[in-house]
Amino acid sequence: MSARDWSDLDFDKPGRQLSWIRIGHSITRSGYGVIPIPVAVFKNGEGPTVLVQAGCHGDEYEGQIAVSRLINQLDVSKVSGRIIAVSAANPPAVVAGARVSPIDEGNLNRLFPGDEFGTPTQRIAHFIHDAVLPMCDAVVDMHAGGTSMELMIYCAGGTSGDAALDRRMQGMLDAFNAPVSLTFKGMSGGGNLSQVAREMGIPSIAAELGGGGGVNVEATRVGEGGIYRVLDHLGVLPLDEKWRRPDATQPIRIAGNRAYTYVYDAGVFEHLHPLGAIVAAGEVAGYLHHPENPQRAPEPIRFEETGLLYCRRAIGRVQPGDCVAHLAVAA
Amino acid sequence: MSARDWSDLDFDKPGRQLSWIRIGHSITRSGYGVIPIPVAVFKNGEGPTVLVQAGCHGDEYEGQIAVSRLINQLDVSKVSGRIIAVSAANPPAVVAGARVSPIDEGNLNRLFPGDEFGTPTQRIAHFIHDAVLPMCDAVVDMHAGGTSMELMIYCAGGTSGDAALDRRMQGMLDAFNAPVSLTFKGMSGGGNLSQVAREMGIPSIAAELGGGGGVNVEATRVGEGGIYRVLDHLGVLPLDEKWRRPDATQPIRIAGNRAYTYVYDAGVFEHLHPLGAIVAAGEVAGYLHHPENPQRAPEPIRFEETGLLYCRRAIGRVQPGDCVAHLAVAA
Amino acid sequence: MSARDWSDLDFDKPGRQLSWIRIGHSITRSGYGVIPIPVAVFKNGEGPTVLVQAGCHGDEYEGQIAVSRLINQLDVSKVSGRIIAVSAANPPAVVAGARVSPIDEGNLNRLFPGDEFGTPTQRIAHFIHDAVLPMCDAVVDMHAGGTSMELMIYCAGGTSGDAALDRRMQGMLDAFNAPVSLTFKGMSGGGNLSQVAREMGIPSIAAELGGGGGVNVEATRVGEGGIYRVLDHLGVLPLDEKWRRPDATQPIRIAGNRAYTYVYDAGVFEHLHPLGAIVAAGEVAGYLHHPENPQRAPEPIRFEETGLLYCRRAIGRVQPGDCVAHLAVAA
Amino acid sequence: MSARDWSDLDFDKPGRQLSWIRIGHSITRSGYGVIPIPVAVFKNGEGPTVLVQAGCHGDEYEGQIAVSRLINQLDVSKVSGRIIAVSAANPPAVVAGARVSPIDEGNLNRLFPGDEFGTPTQRIAHFIHDAVLPMCDAVVDMHAGGTSMELMIYCAGGTSGDAALDRRMQGMLDAFNAPVSLTFKGMSGGGNLSQVAREMGIPSIAAELGGGGGVNVEATRVGEGGIYRVLDHLGVLPLDEKWRRPDATQPIRIAGNRAYTYVYDAGVFEHLHPLGAIVAAGEVAGYLHHPENPQRAPEPIRFEETGLLYCRRAIGRVQPGDCVAHLAVAA
Amino acid sequence: MSARDWSDLDFDKPGRQLSWIRIGHSITRSGYGVIPIPVAVFKNGEGPTVLVQAGCHGDEYEGQIAVSRLINQLDVSKVSGRIIAVSAANPPAVVAGARVSPIDEGNLNRLFPGDEFGTPTQRIAHFIHDAVLPMCDAVVDMHAGGTSMELMIYCAGGTSGDAALDRRMQGMLDAFNAPVSLTFKGMSGGGNLSQVAREMGIPSIAAELGGGGGVNVEATRVGEGGIYRVLDHLGVLPLDEKWRRPDATQPIRIAGNRAYTYVYDAGVFEHLHPLGAIVAAGEVAGYLHHPENPQRAPEPIRFEETGLLYCRRAIGRVQPGDCVAHLAVAA
Amino acid sequence: MSARDWSDLDFDKPGRQLSWIRIGHSITRSGYGVIPIPVAVFKNGEGPTVLVQAGCHGDEYEGQIAVSRLINQLDVSKVSGRIIAVSAANPPAVVAGARVSPIDEGNLNRLFPGDEFGTPTQRIAHFIHDAVLPMCDAVVDMHAGGTSMELMIYCAGGTSGDAALDRRMQGMLDAFNAPVSLTFKGMSGGGNLSQVAREMGIPSIAAELGGGGGVNVEATRVGEGGIYRVLDHLGVLPLDEKWRRPDATQPIRIAGNRAYTYVYDAGVFEHLHPLGAIVAAGEVAGYLHHPENPQRAPEPIRFEETGLLYCRRAIGRVQPGDCVAHLAVAA
Repeated sequence: MSARDWSDLDFDKPGRQLSWIRIGHSITRSGYGVIPIPVAVFKNGEGPTVLVQAGCHGDEYEGQIAVSRLINQLDVSKVSGRIIAVSAANPPAVVAGARVSPIDEGNLNRLFPGDEFGTPTQRIAHFIHDAVLPMCDAVVDMHAGGTSMELMIYCAGGTSGDAALDRRMQGMLDAFNAPVSLTFKGMSGGGNLSQVAREMGIPSIAAELGGGGGVNVEATRVGEGGIYRVLDHLGVLPLDEKWRRPDATQPIRIAGNRAYTYVYDAGVFEHLHPLGAIVAAGEVAGYLHHPENPQRAPEPIRFEETGLLYCRRAIGRVQPGDCVAHLAVAA
Repeated sequence: MSARDWSDLDFDKPGRQLSWIRIGHSITRSGYGVIPIPVAVFKNGEGPTVLVQAGCHGDEYEGQIAVSRLINQLDVSKVSGRIIAVSAANPPAVVAGARVSPIDEGNLNRLFPGDEFGTPTQRIAHFIHDAVLPMCDAVVDMHAGGTSMELMIYCAGGTSGDAALDRRMQGMLDAFNAPVSLTFKGMSGGGNLSQVAREMGIPSIAAELGGGGGVNVEATRVGEGGIYRVLDHLGVLPLDEKWRRPDATQPIRIAGNRAYTYVYDAGVFEHLHPLGAIVAAGEVAGYLHHPENPQRAPEPIRFEETGLLYCRRAIGRVQPGDCVAHLAVAA
Repeated sequence: MSARDWSDLDFDKPGRQLSWIRIGHSITRSGYGVIPIPVAVFKNGEGPTVLVQAGCHGDEYEGQIAVSRLINQLDVSKVSGRIIAVSAANPPAVVAGARVSPIDEGNLNRLFPGDEFGTPTQRIAHFIHDAVLPMCDAVVDMHAGGTSMELMIYCAGGTSGDAALDRRMQGMLDAFNAPVSLTFKGMSGGGNLSQVAREMGIPSIAAELGGGGGVNVEATRVGEGGIYRVLDHLGVLPLDEKWRRPDATQPIRIAGNRAYTYVYDAGVFEHLHPLGAIVAAGEVAGYLHHPENPQRAPEPIRFEETGLLYCRRAIGRVQPGDCVAHLAVAA
Repeated sequence: MSARDWSDLDFDKPGRQLSWIRIGHSITRSGYGVIPIPVAVFKNGEGPTVLVQAGCHGDEYEGQIAVSRLINQLDVSKVSGRIIAVSAANPPAVVAGARVSPIDEGNLNRLFPGDEFGTPTQRIAHFIHDAVLPMCDAVVDMHAGGTSMELMIYCAGGTSGDAALDRRMQGMLDAFNAPVSLTFKGMSGGGNLSQVAREMGIPSIAAELGGGGGVNVEATRVGEGGIYRVLDHLGVLPLDEKWRRPDATQPIRIAGNRAYTYVYDAGVFEHLHPLGAIVAAGEVAGYLHHPENPQRAPEPIRFEETGLLYCRRAIGRVQPGDCVAHLAVAA
Repeated sequence: MSARDWSDLDFDKPGRQLSWIRIGHSITRSGYGVIPIPVAVFKNGEGPTVLVQAGCHGDEYEGQIAVSRLINQLDVSKVSGRIIAVSAANPPAVVAGARVSPIDEGNLNRLFPGDEFGTPTQRIAHFIHDAVLPMCDAVVDMHAGGTSMELMIYCAGGTSGDAALDRRMQGMLDAFNAPVSLTFKGMSGGGNLSQVAREMGIPSIAAELGGGGGVNVEATRVGEGGIYRVLDHLGVLPLDEKWRRPDATQPIRIAGNRAYTYVYDAGVFEHLHPLGAIVAAGEVAGYLHHPENPQRAPEPIRFEETGLLYCRRAIGRVQPGDCVAHLAVAA
Repeated sequence: MSARDWSDLDFDKPGRQLSWIRIGHSITRSGYGVIPIPVAVFKNGEGPTVLVQAGCHGDEYEGQIAVSRLINQLDVSKVSGRIIAVSAANPPAVVAGARVSPIDEGNLNRLFPGDEFGTPTQRIAHFIHDAVLPMCDAVVDMHAGGTSMELMIYCAGGTSGDAALDRRMQGMLDAFNAPVSLTFKGMSGGGNLSQVAREMGIPSIAAELGGGGGVNVEATRVGEGGIYRVLDHLGVLPLDEKWRRPDATQPIRIAGNRAYTYVYDAGVFEHLHPLGAIVAAGEVAGYLHHPENPQRAPEPIRFEETGLLYCRRAIGRVQPGDCVAHLAVAA
């Protein structure tokens, strides 16, 4: 912990603690203020340490609800090991209901391993990376599509090149048992928690639950159950039968180099295909309309690969560079 | 038309015209600029004049798409009378993908009959009210739930106290034939286009298509077809059979004085009921979570009436005063 | 109450009610949202109706605290008549800790009698003026110096030209018994609650408690006691002895046409005189420094009248047109 | 003068006074602040009253310089009558170097006759209209093209329908003797100072000096001399020979209904013609480029009238609705 | 000095110079602009070099006034050595009257040693650290509580582990002779000027004068005198007797690990104790009120240590994570 | 190319390609969005690779037009080698018509060599530096004066200390043949493209075409022709005779240490000298007026060197630290 960022939590003390990580934030309206990150520690007996994090992105709500409920309901006496539960990893983003922090426009999941002397979001990443991750044996990070994307309900992992680590990650993914399981080949895009955890040898998965900036009831249930199924799998908490999910997960992977479909002009994008559809390279994904200038006719936007439409844009209005579709294939 | 706001459209000229209403907007970066509102006029033979408007709210996309397509595809030679089609009634809001104009925070549908010397949005309302509505025999206004609300697909009308006018409005509502038809008892809340049209003796209906700030494919099709069915009903354009909708509409009305459910604290609201559910007064509508401070337990929020959940909040994060549910009963 | 702004409070029902005035505020992030103004009604037996309002300005805290405590502690069975207590008249300003609403930059105390179709702050003024004031026999409005000014603790009234009304106002001022009582000759500046109340024949006083944007402990106590002393004076609530204040109030009035001292350049203003000082016309009030450009020497700013320095600027940095001092003389 | 807006100037006192109109502006950082409008009054002997105003638009600098210099240099003993000189009519816009006020986005020259209870810019308009104009026998308003437009140097007047008034206005226009004199047929666009002055029977002209948001040295000299030539013409101040301008003015008028050329898409506009060119209807005015998306080819934008290009856009980047050219013909 | 940041001051030239450090700041409205930091150099004879800095935080005014006055009044012929006086170290913050720069939200006193290629505030820190500090034998940095905190008047130093350096720092602290002297054990929080100076072996103290965003007359006098007493102590300038302060300073240190009291919810915080009070662990520091929602009762906030209340929050409205009190004990 | 920033362009493929560099930009309204930088590659036969870049600054339009036109008109079969043409290097700045990016206030030409993990503008600089420059044998960067400065039309180069490299750069400067050629002695200010290119051994020149935020027709032609003349000089594209420019360029260099004239107070700056004038040290450059406070007389601002006024401020309103003039002398 640095001179500016600290916590009064004693992570080694048995029992339930609920306190804060404090990220110093000295501004005009609060010269000695902090950004308080809520953290619960449940420690009992022997066993591994699992970090369960939500609120990395403030507009992804299912995980925030699941972890808030876990903090309020978990019986520490049933724990074997330690659960570190964070319901709002980037509190300014959570309070704003936004992907990024309104303080520094920081996207926490692009800023790991962080910077001790950087912006508040960089310092949150640094604190989690340097002070929390070294205590952990496994990580479950709770995400969703956020304001801009809607998703099939899935859980994601990434191969690390270390076969033993990959097996442990795959075990967690199977235990989480979302309707769909997405495995990245090699490391995913830079700066996210799962990636840096894997680089430290910690198996890590990221749940992606619903999207569109709302609360998906089914996804919340999948997510809440998934946490308990992983904790059971890791031997930290025995599973309540109500959380067992009988259906098997469907394994997928990203569909080739052109799996992402973009628009390069502004307008209103009208999808032609629902989530879950199988679409073909060259097929029209949707039309770009210009209601502010109907002298410009609608333009077709086409897929560049063949695959499963597992993620698509949730907002009608688009700007140049917006991604409107992600495609996957069976893993 | 005023000294500042004008159009070069000749609304009486036969044929198809596509031009602009220009709302003068003199600002630092454009001293002689205008806000250009796209308007298409289709005039042919004898018959009534129908205004079809979309883009009153910029984040309600289905109507913008339907009217953009109508402008690009309509064959003026089939028209009997006149169709005035506006695909973006409040262009700054449309371009921003927002309910209100970023110029003056104006909500066009709360500002009728407008003000010739007011803000840009007030002047748009004034122009439509004073220069366009007097030409019209019927109005179809295309809305949706917008960024913040998701809706069952419906079309709304309001009783005016004038039985003949109400019958004409009811005929349009039946012709539109949305899955659900909502009739307000008495005038609805102040300042909207339908209300001021009815006060001028013009039957007027408002389609409400989907919501959540995305593009609902089914709602777009209902909306596009609804326009053609109403135009056919009014004798302005013969119906293409592909737009016929066989199912009957379900008539509803607002459920009593406490049909709206609010929250009075900030947090993340988790719905317990899907759209279309029948719920009871006193039942828990959902829980208000505080992931940024899990020391505060989730709080139940209850319905105050019994009825059909036809509209609910689409965004997880709420602020004090946000409405999370609307209830209706069979009409 | 209008179609957009309403309350479920029954102001005629005996007992204690705590609910909301709802000012409709339809925006992108909340299409059916309201601004909820907290209102408590305490009604019992016969007697006059007194409005006790705080939070007209969001950065004047003593009154907000006093009225919040009154709402939480008042025993309705002791009331003879009716007390309407508003702890946050302009909630967006209160939540922002600002004089004006962040929604529309509205200063509620300059906008009475309001406008039913105006901005949110204008509509709050309209609701209070049209729906609340007609029920009232007396008004106590709780203010302070706010962020920008520090004040001697006083209570203010204004002469109305109606001798009977003025006597009732004077009785309330004497009962409030602040250290200082300021009486305006004729109506004060336009648009404030006290003025419009007096124009409706309702005696009205405004407490001015401390300032500088902080919480003055002594002023809070004077303000809280003053409310109880006025309620006792009006026969609505018997006085608890702990709120009796033995010292007599000092009557003052504004000192002539040039009682206000302004600066017309930017810089840092250094006061030379404390609050409560007697100063003379022509005397140096303070110096205007230019630390960002010390090539410009400090400039003396002089008083233009002789009198008591009862109010002065609380912020060091000034802009052209800022007022740095108010002077009064014995009434 | 209202309760909130006032001045300590005695407009009837002989000699030179330099003080302020104070527009009350009560905000968080200045609860008793004012917007101070600098006003100089030069009164001596008998003769008419002339208002010379600059800084109506804050990014039109030549007039601000000319009037500042006049205030610093004028010898009141040479005056016959009264000169009211305002160097910064809308001070927040002047200090921001912007057309509109940053406080309320108000364009002062669209807001006359103003509103006593409106926004600060509306209240400035009201004060000038109600408290200053009734004292005046003639008005000279100093403008330029501002940030967005570049102009040939001209002075503008408008016919009022009152032949005697029009002759007096024409006399002032001839006396000002700018290189070009533009006369509007009938009243110009709503809300400007010249128009409301003429409606009060006061002859009024508006100088338009250069543009592009810079300081045009030649235009400054034309403007400064023009003020002195008009004051001499009106008998208020004898002309110093150095301000005599030998060349004759060229009279023009707006070229028909389509004298203004607009763009309806965003991009970079490349002019093909210099100011002062004679252009023809149908000719290409310039090209609209899309450097952010060169897949879209440049589009030609055409004039819709034939005439003199006396005003054109000064900024390369354009938005939909921006005006890129004004055309005139010989009067 | 870098390619972008430079000064024309010749720090080795005898006599008085007043010029600028120029921090290059190339933006849209000023492509070749600089941020000009005012610096005065007084060099005469032999002796040490002392940096006297104010305006590190723009809303701490007493030091800005003291240093502005020193720059305007100091007689260089009395100097033995060199005084480098900076009245506005972070000019954008000073002009805004804010703790942080409005350009980059930078808090200069958290950004030392700075970054040559960073944001403007980082580059200011870098210039002072790399180009100014190496010339210095002692540093006096002038602070106050700023907008958000009010303080007992004190001067602060920190122990460095180097006994000789600590003695020199203690000598300066004693010479400054504020009513209270606070010594940090070990280095204080990262990034401040005093800390980096000490790391370079330069004794450094920081005056903390009043607070609340106003100008404290007594604190200004203590601060102005303190500078002269330190300059005398260091042999750079003989003391004028008028600046001698007879009372002795009271030495204190921070009270343990929980010396800071925070709130974790939003509301209005009402202090129960004045500055200078001795308070006990567990005692109620104040109440958190919710005037915007009086259904939530006020909550007590408690101290976690016993000690002297030497600093407390000056603004009534608080946000989660705000610090409301600092406690100290006798050193 | 990094995990977040990539392109689908194959820079080695013969023929014409037009696609995008994609800079990942994950924000609330677009979780998987990119900033798309348009890039055209023209490859044919053998020969050097030349980067022609515009839109580094978004308010410098002549180069954006020239490169857009080149992309639309160039016949790839005439190329010997490779031309990489970028019409909008910093698209958010281009679309905003601003010098800096509205996303991060980044000035691309101060941020080379960039940062792979930095802000979007830093990542654009990094991509160009690490992925594009290593392919290049020469660089032509198209600039202008931008919103704030107006310039004589010139092309600039800088000496590198490597005589061979300087000769190649001088050859390009002579080939470009702008009316004026400016050579910096030693490296110019940090962080620009030309400098980092030269540090990599790549000859690089920067055209400076007009200014004031408009489109200068003559400068556009000089710039467009200059590109073709350099491409011909380098043997990449034979010159069309229409682009030959008969006049010789005038070589200049910066005039001494005080070649830049600044203002240190706010006001309206009135130039006394036109671009191209020869001015003397001590001469008045212009006057600083204070129309918002005419009690302050205009102040003269003087040149500190003798030389050619080749660049001056284009905006009337100035702030402290603004540069109003640059001077040069014959090289």
